[in-house]
Amino acid sequence: MKNEKKIGIIMGSDSDLPVMKKAAEILDDFGIGYELTVVSAHRTPKRLYEYAMNAKSKGIEVIIAGAGGAAHLPGMVASITEIPVIGVPVKTSSLNGLDSLLSIVQMPGGVPVATVAINGAKNAGILAAQIIGINNKEIQNKVKEYKKELEKNVLTKAEKLEKIGYKDYLNE
Amino acid sequence: MKNEKKIGIIMGSDSDLPVMKKAAEILDDFGIGYELTVVSAHRTPKRLYEYAMNAKSKGIEVIIAGAGGAAHLPGMVASITEIPVIGVPVKTSSLNGLDSLLSIVQMPGGVPVATVAINGAKNAGILAAQIIGINNKEIQNKVKEYKKELEKNVLTKAEKLEKIGYKDYLNE
Amino acid sequence: MKNEKKIGIIMGSDSDLPVMKKAAEILDDFGIGYELTVVSAHRTPKRLYEYAMNAKSKGIEVIIAGAGGAAHLPGMVASITEIPVIGVPVKTSSLNGLDSLLSIVQMPGGVPVATVAINGAKNAGILAAQIIGINNKEIQNKVKEYKKELEKNVLTKAEKLEKIGYKDYLNE
Amino acid sequence: MKNEKKIGIIMGSDSDLPVMKKAAEILDDFGIGYELTVVSAHRTPKRLYEYAMNAKSKGIEVIIAGAGGAAHLPGMVASITEIPVIGVPVKTSSLNGLDSLLSIVQMPGGVPVATVAINGAKNAGILAAQIIGINNKEIQNKVKEYKKELEKNVLTKAEKLEKIGYKDYLNE
Amino acid sequence: MKNEKKIGIIMGSDSDLPVMKKAAEILDDFGIGYELTVVSAHRTPKRLYEYAMNAKSKGIEVIIAGAGGAAHLPGMVASITEIPVIGVPVKTSSLNGLDSLLSIVQMPGGVPVATVAINGAKNAGILAAQIIGINNKEIQNKVKEYKKELEKNVLTKAEKLEKIGYKDYLNE
Amino acid sequence: MKNEKKIGIIMGSDSDLPVMKKAAEILDDFGIGYELTVVSAHRTPKRLYEYAMNAKSKGIEVIIAGAGGAAHLPGMVASITEIPVIGVPVKTSSLNGLDSLLSIVQMPGGVPVATVAINGAKNAGILAAQIIGINNKEIQNKVKEYKKELEKNVLTKAEKLEKIGYKDYLNE
Amino acid sequence: MKNEKKIGIIMGSDSDLPVMKKAAEILDDFGIGYELTVVSAHRTPKRLYEYAMNAKSKGIEVIIAGAGGAAHLPGMVASITEIPVIGVPVKTSSLNGLDSLLSIVQMPGGVPVATVAINGAKNAGILAAQIIGINNKEIQNKVKEYKKELEKNVLTKAEKLEKIGYKDYLNE
Amino acid sequence: MKNEKKIGIIMGSDSDLPVMKKAAEILDDFGIGYELTVVSAHRTPKRLYEYAMNAKSKGIEVIIAGAGGAAHLPGMVASITEIPVIGVPVKTSSLNGLDSLLSIVQMPGGVPVATVAINGAKNAGILAAQIIGINNKEIQNKVKEYKKELEKNVLTKAEKLEKIGYKDYLNE
Repeated sequence: MKNEKKIGIIMGSDSDLPVMKKAAEILDDFGIGYELTVVSAHRTPKRLYEYAMNAKSKGIEVIIAGAGGAAHLPGMVASITEIPVIGVPVKTSSLNGLDSLLSIVQMPGGVPVATVAINGAKNAGILAAQIIGINNKEIQNKVKEYKKELEKNVLTKAEKLEKIGYKDYLNE
Repeated sequence: MKNEKKIGIIMGSDSDLPVMKKAAEILDDFGIGYELTVVSAHRTPKRLYEYAMNAKSKGIEVIIAGAGGAAHLPGMVASITEIPVIGVPVKTSSLNGLDSLLSIVQMPGGVPVATVAINGAKNAGILAAQIIGINNKEIQNKVKEYKKELEKNVLTKAEKLEKIGYKDYLNE
Repeated sequence: MKNEKKIGIIMGSDSDLPVMKKAAEILDDFGIGYELTVVSAHRTPKRLYEYAMNAKSKGIEVIIAGAGGAAHLPGMVASITEIPVIGVPVKTSSLNGLDSLLSIVQMPGGVPVATVAINGAKNAGILAAQIIGINNKEIQNKVKEYKKELEKNVLTKAEKLEKIGYKDYLNE
Repeated sequence: MKNEKKIGIIMGSDSDLPVMKKAAEILDDFGIGYELTVVSAHRTPKRLYEYAMNAKSKGIEVIIAGAGGAAHLPGMVASITEIPVIGVPVKTSSLNGLDSLLSIVQMPGGVPVATVAINGAKNAGILAAQIIGINNKEIQNKVKEYKKELEKNVLTKAEKLEKIGYKDYLNE
Repeated sequence: MKNEKKIGIIMGSDSDLPVMKKAAEILDDFGIGYELTVVSAHRTPKRLYEYAMNAKSKGIEVIIAGAGGAAHLPGMVASITEIPVIGVPVKTSSLNGLDSLLSIVQMPGGVPVATVAINGAKNAGILAAQIIGINNKEIQNKVKEYKKELEKNVLTKAEKLEKIGYKDYLNE
Repeated sequence: MKNEKKIGIIMGSDSDLPVMKKAAEILDDFGIGYELTVVSAHRTPKRLYEYAMNAKSKGIEVIIAGAGGAAHLPGMVASITEIPVIGVPVKTSSLNGLDSLLSIVQMPGGVPVATVAINGAKNAGILAAQIIGINNKEIQNKVKEYKKELEKNVLTKAEKLEKIGYKDYLNE
Repeated sequence: MKNEKKIGIIMGSDSDLPVMKKAAEILDDFGIGYELTVVSAHRTPKRLYEYAMNAKSKGIEVIIAGAGGAAHLPGMVASITEIPVIGVPVKTSSLNGLDSLLSIVQMPGGVPVATVAINGAKNAGILAAQIIGINNKEIQNKVKEYKKELEKNVLTKAEKLEKIGYKDYLNE
Repeated sequence: MKNEKKIGIIMGSDSDLPVMKKAAEILDDFGIGYELTVVSAHRTPKRLYEYAMNAKSKGIEVIIAGAGGAAHLPGMVASITEIPVIGVPVKTSSLNGLDSLLSIVQMPGGVPVATVAINGAKNAGILAAQIIGINNKEIQNKVKEYKKELEKNVLTKAEKLEKIGYKDYLNE
């Protein structure tokens, strides 16, 4: 299934890549195919329009869009396509991503963006997998396994912490 | 299909119903079956646990969860189930829903909640339809039609405004 | 000159009209021609694209764009046209327009939006007149006169307040 | 009494340990027994449920729970147990802990969390001691002594500062 | 036990009474004795000092202090007494209680205030009961019953809502 | 002394008068002479300059300046005169006076404005009296009496509340 | 045209120069003449007054004014001159420029400041060029070219990223 | 006059000294006598009470009080004494001093604190000098000279910047 690119990961600038690559990494872990590129709402508006218009016909089922500041990319893509759009507010230097968050989440009635936490690109990838997983038991099971793994990691850490105490735990 | 309940709409309190009913209304419009009830993270934690554990096996494919203030319902449901959870931050009297928004959207790595705007229950319903629509062309077309309708409404209003001018428009 | 439409006033929804009409009113006062209509970034993205593409060739010299919440209209128009765009953040019910303000003003390098105060449509009109006035002495003088009028009004009120005292002033 | 574990200190992640250990340290100073471990609301919801259900019967009298971001741990524990829960909002990288604070403190009617300052784990420990101290004069006296010590330290510093002046004080 | 006044409820102004009475009401429900009065940090600093100094010897075991704006009452009382102090941030007209919340919760190391939600006086009463309940099984059981009652109310409402549907539910 | 106008009360607009009159009223109570007028930083910049330049030579010893939004009046007056300037941030409709507060209080090094609470014009008057009172024992004693009166009022209310209980108190 | 100084770039302090120089650099790129200096609203109020009074007669057509904190420079200049003023909120160490932004953008009716993003001096320069460009096709074409260049840069980066993948892209 | 200590500079903790020393330095420049010490509202409440009670009789005419977080020191001192109190909000690590600012400035009617900017201790010193200067022409002239010096420094920098250009200016 890896060859089918079901998820489109786009970002407003290549400077968002260190944040947005986490969406790609988790999709790699889940074995879900994706394409990843830069689409700037403000510097390449035509490209934005075309990307959003064509995504569905290319086989893209979910779009993950990350942007910072006056972050218009996720909302504009959502205005053009009928497939679900997940928005990732990228942390900014002056307002710490509060501007990005509000610009992405406060969409008007009719055009939702599924917003995740500031810099939450990994969660955007997991959410995309959950959405794909509704009709793909293999993916859904991988998400289930992933959650079990998360749980196991916490339990292992908790056991160790309880056993050796916080002082030794912190000294390791 | 209406008889299959594919969407679970839950809210922390029946006082959230005037906001959350908009999710139900739009799903009615799209002809998507849903169940709607109250599940309080803080007053019925066992019910929360059971609801989230059983949702998938009942056939629920997407959960829409609305809550206000220290809004833990969406995130706690998302921690228990592997199906996607959409969070609706309900506006609060003191902090206007900023508390609800941050409590819902700022989830840690591993457990996403697809957050919509403050009081954005209609958009939660549309997002659920978009998700269901990925594998249901009928629903996807309805979303497409809905968006066209939105567009047409704006165009009609724009045409009228341009024709009669803002003074007459406001006096009607 | 009134017949030449030099200013384009657009807004994301006709519900913004009670705020945005103040831009039209002040342009009427200055005798500057304008067109006024609804262009929704999220519900009519094609119309947005076309409006912004064609504005300059129609003779529009400055665009005033008002929007609320995840307010993408001013920034998206600015991304498409090379004429100046003035953004008016419209007050919202939950976050009082702070979301609108940040969505409009925090534009990335390369694509400015000249942002005015929340609900500051009158000032958007005055700013447009100041811009037009750079090469139109008649308009520039009207702005100058307008500012003198503002000053005179304050001076008249101040004189009256000093004369009759604050108690009588408030009782009138 | 040290062997009786009267206080349960839990945190959402072992990355909270450098903050949360301060609760343990002050309880060590007061000679109050405690257990300390990791319980993640989002990654180990079953463990959360069990921890909160069993705390009282194990002899835990007060729970201190620290978490960051969409910090659901303290509130969810409080929803399950009838013993008092103290919440510590952990500082976050993007919103500096404002998200943690609002997620913890803004609990709905019926389920309080005794919230302390952002990163205020030491104060959580002192508050737990004050609560235990109501029926334990030894502990209450230790809190009293601790407060006297705080006072003495300030008085010593003040005396020195007054004596040597701020320049020498800062140069030391 | 009602005759013993175990809880001191104080507030900065009698204008806080409509909020703060909810602490009294819930304590009445739990059958916990309390005294209730006005103590202003800024207008009656001597009274504040004396109140805090004498509370413990009068038999007060927990103090609930509500205040708004630059809300210094809870923190100042906490600085003087070794018994636990619960702070209630009262909503303010200009900043909606964000000022009250930060003034109460952000206490320095050494002097905690157990802060509840903005206007959360009912929760302050419940928290006081939980604290008293640690060594009073009757009270602890009442808290447990109260929580069961909360749960039952939600379950009853949920059952009704599921049965009659949201339209009829809202029309009642 | 009433005939000497020692305090200048100015405000950016006559719409600020319902707030700013409270400074005048308390100065009337203290028997301190003042002048009160409108000086707009933005609409009457020359008047601002002249007012600030001449205030001291007219005998004004303290200036109280109130303004809202981008509130430049207090800071600009402070930049021109060497007498102390007290700033009153007036509550605004969109941002509730947070904009006014930050515009007034965050002055750069060299040019302080003594800022009081949002809409705190009464306190501005009291602060002016405290400043005048340093070298005027009569005024200083009046401030002292005023504070005693405040204290007495609280004590009377507290006594009544303690005597009749909160239910009767609220019913009156 | 370079010799004609059409733009006045001013800032409240020479410490703003590392931010504000970006306005100068982009104007250099566009070949638009400017003057650049320090004008402090609070430390040189007379200079501010004179600068704003004389700007137009010197041939200045647009003023770019940057300031931080209680940022009064742009608004005060705008109150004195009838030419358009662009405000640049400079980031501050304590409130990250939110204070600067609100102090600049929230101007009262009658006196607009065209506000750009926090530290957005480059965009201030571009906006000035867009304004000048309305009546100067050469400049307008340069802005158009600049926007095309921006687009081309994004397209080149996007192409490369698509070709080599995010891992290699980040390793370069 | 240096020997008379007219100003009391106090702070909540010796960790505030690097900020608060700037008040002392500017008073040294103005030749105004002061005392400087630590008074903690929360750790030394008795000392706070005594300090505020005795300040006036010791000859203190103005108190400068700095504190951070739940900053109660300035307001509590103001509640006890009738001399003017200047509050300095000290920047905090989590909320950047917004908590300190609101805790200090939002005082209730009757008890003003003259608040300066976050970390604005130098301005607190200047404000104290302006207040003392009302009845001390020597001090008032020093403030006047200081302001002229500020102006001269800006003019010198402006002249240099205009002469050598921003590139050379930044390279020096």
